[in-house]
Amino acid sequence: MPAPTPKRADGRGATELRPFSVDWDPMSFALSSLIVRTGRTAVLCSVSLEEDVPRWRRGNGCGWLSAEYRLLPGSTPQRQSRELMKLSGRTQEIQRLIGRSLRAVLDMDALGERTLLIDCDVIQADAGTRTASITGAWIALRRACDLLRSQGVLTQDPIRQQLAAVSVGLIDGTPLLDLDYSEDSRADVDLNVVTAGDGRLLELQGTAEQAPFSRSELDAMLNLAESGLQELMQGQRHALATAAGSAIS
Amino acid sequence: MPAPTPKRADGRGATELRPFSVDWDPMSFALSSLIVRTGRTAVLCSVSLEEDVPRWRRGNGCGWLSAEYRLLPGSTPQRQSRELMKLSGRTQEIQRLIGRSLRAVLDMDALGERTLLIDCDVIQADAGTRTASITGAWIALRRACDLLRSQGVLTQDPIRQQLAAVSVGLIDGTPLLDLDYSEDSRADVDLNVVTAGDGRLLELQGTAEQAPFSRSELDAMLNLAESGLQELMQGQRHALATAAGSAIS
Amino acid sequence: MPAPTPKRADGRGATELRPFSVDWDPMSFALSSLIVRTGRTAVLCSVSLEEDVPRWRRGNGCGWLSAEYRLLPGSTPQRQSRELMKLSGRTQEIQRLIGRSLRAVLDMDALGERTLLIDCDVIQADAGTRTASITGAWIALRRACDLLRSQGVLTQDPIRQQLAAVSVGLIDGTPLLDLDYSEDSRADVDLNVVTAGDGRLLELQGTAEQAPFSRSELDAMLNLAESGLQELMQGQRHALATAAGSAIS
Amino acid sequence: MPAPTPKRADGRGATELRPFSVDWDPMSFALSSLIVRTGRTAVLCSVSLEEDVPRWRRGNGCGWLSAEYRLLPGSTPQRQSRELMKLSGRTQEIQRLIGRSLRAVLDMDALGERTLLIDCDVIQADAGTRTASITGAWIALRRACDLLRSQGVLTQDPIRQQLAAVSVGLIDGTPLLDLDYSEDSRADVDLNVVTAGDGRLLELQGTAEQAPFSRSELDAMLNLAESGLQELMQGQRHALATAAGSAIS
Amino acid sequence: MPAPTPKRADGRGATELRPFSVDWDPMSFALSSLIVRTGRTAVLCSVSLEEDVPRWRRGNGCGWLSAEYRLLPGSTPQRQSRELMKLSGRTQEIQRLIGRSLRAVLDMDALGERTLLIDCDVIQADAGTRTASITGAWIALRRACDLLRSQGVLTQDPIRQQLAAVSVGLIDGTPLLDLDYSEDSRADVDLNVVTAGDGRLLELQGTAEQAPFSRSELDAMLNLAESGLQELMQGQRHALATAAGSAIS
Amino acid sequence: MPAPTPKRADGRGATELRPFSVDWDPMSFALSSLIVRTGRTAVLCSVSLEEDVPRWRRGNGCGWLSAEYRLLPGSTPQRQSRELMKLSGRTQEIQRLIGRSLRAVLDMDALGERTLLIDCDVIQADAGTRTASITGAWIALRRACDLLRSQGVLTQDPIRQQLAAVSVGLIDGTPLLDLDYSEDSRADVDLNVVTAGDGRLLELQGTAEQAPFSRSELDAMLNLAESGLQELMQGQRHALATAAGSAIS
Repeated sequence: MPAPTPKRADGRGATELRPFSVDWDPMSFALSSLIVRTGRTAVLCSVSLEEDVPRWRRGNGCGWLSAEYRLLPGSTPQRQSRELMKLSGRTQEIQRLIGRSLRAVLDMDALGERTLLIDCDVIQADAGTRTASITGAWIALRRACDLLRSQGVLTQDPIRQQLAAVSVGLIDGTPLLDLDYSEDSRADVDLNVVTAGDGRLLELQGTAEQAPFSRSELDAMLNLAESGLQELMQGQRHALATAAGSAIS
Repeated sequence: MPAPTPKRADGRGATELRPFSVDWDPMSFALSSLIVRTGRTAVLCSVSLEEDVPRWRRGNGCGWLSAEYRLLPGSTPQRQSRELMKLSGRTQEIQRLIGRSLRAVLDMDALGERTLLIDCDVIQADAGTRTASITGAWIALRRACDLLRSQGVLTQDPIRQQLAAVSVGLIDGTPLLDLDYSEDSRADVDLNVVTAGDGRLLELQGTAEQAPFSRSELDAMLNLAESGLQELMQGQRHALATAAGSAIS
Repeated sequence: MPAPTPKRADGRGATELRPFSVDWDPMSFALSSLIVRTGRTAVLCSVSLEEDVPRWRRGNGCGWLSAEYRLLPGSTPQRQSRELMKLSGRTQEIQRLIGRSLRAVLDMDALGERTLLIDCDVIQADAGTRTASITGAWIALRRACDLLRSQGVLTQDPIRQQLAAVSVGLIDGTPLLDLDYSEDSRADVDLNVVTAGDGRLLELQGTAEQAPFSRSELDAMLNLAESGLQELMQGQRHALATAAGSAIS
Repeated sequence: MPAPTPKRADGRGATELRPFSVDWDPMSFALSSLIVRTGRTAVLCSVSLEEDVPRWRRGNGCGWLSAEYRLLPGSTPQRQSRELMKLSGRTQEIQRLIGRSLRAVLDMDALGERTLLIDCDVIQADAGTRTASITGAWIALRRACDLLRSQGVLTQDPIRQQLAAVSVGLIDGTPLLDLDYSEDSRADVDLNVVTAGDGRLLELQGTAEQAPFSRSELDAMLNLAESGLQELMQGQRHALATAAGSAIS
Repeated sequence: MPAPTPKRADGRGATELRPFSVDWDPMSFALSSLIVRTGRTAVLCSVSLEEDVPRWRRGNGCGWLSAEYRLLPGSTPQRQSRELMKLSGRTQEIQRLIGRSLRAVLDMDALGERTLLIDCDVIQADAGTRTASITGAWIALRRACDLLRSQGVLTQDPIRQQLAAVSVGLIDGTPLLDLDYSEDSRADVDLNVVTAGDGRLLELQGTAEQAPFSRSELDAMLNLAESGLQELMQGQRHALATAAGSAIS
Repeated sequence: MPAPTPKRADGRGATELRPFSVDWDPMSFALSSLIVRTGRTAVLCSVSLEEDVPRWRRGNGCGWLSAEYRLLPGSTPQRQSRELMKLSGRTQEIQRLIGRSLRAVLDMDALGERTLLIDCDVIQADAGTRTASITGAWIALRRACDLLRSQGVLTQDPIRQQLAAVSVGLIDGTPLLDLDYSEDSRADVDLNVVTAGDGRLLELQGTAEQAPFSRSELDAMLNLAESGLQELMQGQRHALATAAGSAIS
């Protein structure tokens, strides 16, 4: 699995993540918000609370979480038209993935009949926006739940586990971690991996963009993802630590 | 991977597929059509040809393939409302998966500036409709390309490989092949696998519905999928053999 | 009214129907379903039950019936695009006609506050799809009501009369029964007739496609329709007889 | 066919039309416009010209005509919501009927590659709006074509025949001509008849609202329609005579 | 501010309004209706009552008023397409302006939990349609409230003040009152002014179409608007006087 | 105009602006981008270039500019739903105002057949988002045009004048500059003013939210706006100076 001659455009090795960072509170009126960055990819994540659940969930005391994802028009060199009338299949797929991933670590009973709404608006799109959205949204969600508990809105912690996501690609037979756009656009395979804090898998989406892939190539890619995800989870904890002092006490 | 005590509702073992069959030509005006059945799941697949490609593909001599998927209203015990105004995220995800899978084995140059349109209308939905759609659509596509070559529309065969899809689930720690609805609705993990004729992977979509899954559970599920897919590919070849005599000579 | 030299493409006489048949239960999860065929025209009809009525019908103990009609994409040599965002005028007209015709023979009090939903999805369109839909839907409806009574859901029979529909055309001054597409596309007049079991009229829709028509031409066409409808009603009763033994006892 | 005891709300006999009149030129910027009134029903009809045809008609030198129909919000005691996003089935059916009827008397070659656009906006709805729309639209169309010929835009007259429409109903076994709303809402049968100037039929739409109708009842209704239509055609010619002096000379 | 050499196309002086008139009751089924005319601009205004308020207004005993505005297709020499799917920005802006202006003089408590619905359908568009709509809608509203009080539906008068609107333009440095289309299309500045009966301002919308404008030019335009609005308010009172005898006594 | 007792929530005097600042380049893939802040209101403005103009502008060598405006979901304490299917009247009004204002200072000939697309996405909404959008968008546009000239895309400067916008309100008879949300929600009058660099007016939109306003109150508000706009224009020039060194040389 190690890439003999990495030669990635930005000088990274095959197993290296792009630089990861979080800027807190760009939207001071939201319950919690942050800009998550992995390399040049940047996503604005915010969390809102609604004291209600969708109609079909009402009456059993359980909560819900839903997510929306958009590319802002200026997020790419060629302007993205806003989606009106209908969402593209890509947008729907991504926001369903984000919502499903976060719900998988949420205790709906502890939340009560409330809905947590996650918004991921991409500011800079240099590939990996869906995984950055998931990784960042979990941090914002963790922060939002801490605030809600400190305010007495929630009495129990509804988050059961940490969660992060990363992409791995296969280029000319070499697995590369955390592709940027120049790599993503020529990858043979694109694999997105979401895991829980204990390392087990929550979502796995692999697509042969140019060529089929073997079981052993899949294994190599999953190994790469695993190490990257551990590092990202450290980054998540670090980001939360830097926020902890400010608003909750 | 072997399930010690199968006890599946229909008496199958953990590694057994549901009965697979194909009825040819339910839509005699389409280029090719069939009803594919796996157990009680039944999907009407048809192929149409258009002597044009989407605007963004024009001018380079290459073809295209796109797919649409719908649940017909009577396909489930509780009637499915038709999707108007916008497609659900689920529908979009599935038709994108079908299209992407089939394009992965298609030689767009050999097709020329033409579009093959695949329609998958589910008649009976007992789980596994997306994998049955892919498996059936490939048969219909294979048949359509044979017809187009026998008519002289195509001079080269645009299909590079065989292709089939199957689902595997994890229930109480046991991997089960080809879930029906009663199993699917209580599975911890749902994994859809699409492979090419050489056994390599084209699409992999795994979701932790109830609980995260480990790498070794993933491996067990992939092993199960592999054996099921070989059997399905035999079924595909058998179906084509039964059709071959009738219209092409 | 008899055509001196029939010379219809398929050898039929001017007063002959196309072969009529019914295949039962293509959608085993629906309340009742069938494929009705007249010549090469084939329509998939299914019936679903909903234990509610539209908002504006609630509270008076009466039921409702509504119908939907679609051409499936592969039902014609040139693929039919699915209707999204809005239904065409043609589709709306046809599904309103189907619903209105069936409601005319339904006892809404005997149904109670329930809705019967009729779906007519055309599989092969060789003209006469709206009349085949009505004729087939009545059979499926008759069967559905028998099942609901055998299950004790309904205590009274909500169907007051038999009902069938047929088209008649005028070509070069000659009235022809049950046009196929090659005839329909060059007919001067197109007349659709829906009658009750006692022979009286429920719906009459005549359009001068190429030339106006006289009262005596109308009479000739109605005579032709009358004899055709009696034959179709025999076909309906025969179809029900073949189904009767299987599921209700 | 005469009703022994007329007793209609407005004192009319069974075979009498409501008072018919035309007000010219309410929309002075349109090519031609008028308000047609039959009793309390009033429809604003206008005609516009477009020097183009729909894409699918282009290149063969023939013209086209299309029609739009709306109930204005204040046209009924209970305000009509405007139709946004989608037109109701009723609206689509009516505007298709208006367009089809007028096209049936139009010589598309004489028109050339132009489109005549008919707009029928109902100002007062007291039943019979679709037939009043057709009858009024023909007058406006006749006037528009006279103007286009006087301006040299058209060299031949594209109108081949006069055309009018009327409704007949069956109430308690008695056929009544030209129903108003109080009658229409309790009629057993509603029949709309469109004829050409020579008395032959162009469109016939009969619906059993409450009870099926026999062939002899149909005949009685058609006789009533015939006499009413002759009177309406006189009214049309009279209206044109009053307009003739003003703008064309 | 006076224009030395008026030379307006219709011979008016710079400070003169176009002829103003009202035709009562074109829609006899509406609560109140009129056609308001200023020069060749004509708008059909109608008022309907609904015994309910929008959901967000419910429960506090207060009423609401909303307005809709449309250009009818035949209102301009080049036919206006009807707005389906979405309203243009211009239409939305205008109907919001009409609604906001009328609500500003309405006592919502006196109205009770009812909604007054204003419809303004332009029949002839020769500029100034939004101001004519507001001026005419107030007359129709005044009449509707008189009727509702005479019927005992309302016990208090919900209208607090008179209200009218006019446009002023700046052409080649000269302010001109009440522009027609030929003037409007070459004006440097377009200013719409809505005032209450006491002369104070309710809405002011000025746009530099071709060139910025100075504070002193604004003053000159506002002076012109003020005198025009007093004259329009006289016209409104005169119109109401001619209607008063007919229906309320 | 001086407010005797300022007592504004944030301690400002009646004639003081909120703190104004600009953060450059939050979207590094856009042609130019910035976050403009006035107090707690923050708007993300970006500019994109398209080498084409809308269809109706083609062929005369002139350019175009269009603007889009949105409230991001997390921009307010109560989450804003994204607008799908149709834009609200408020959103349309604001984006039309932004586009019209910027086009008023743009030389379309100097731009050539290109479109500048302005996106204003509100991150924090504390009132004044439309004026902040205009003021910020002009800075981003100025920067974008400098870049296009330095790259040789444009040979002439298409911007003719500086431009800024501000709001003024009237609360209890006192005019206050640059309202925040707590003030805006109880203002009697809301006035938005857009001026060019020479102080002349481009857009003026005044609305009596609670009470009509007099000509002298209008004058007082305009005086306040004038001084605020001069200060904002200094702020714009200062922001451009801080950006100037970085990318253009």
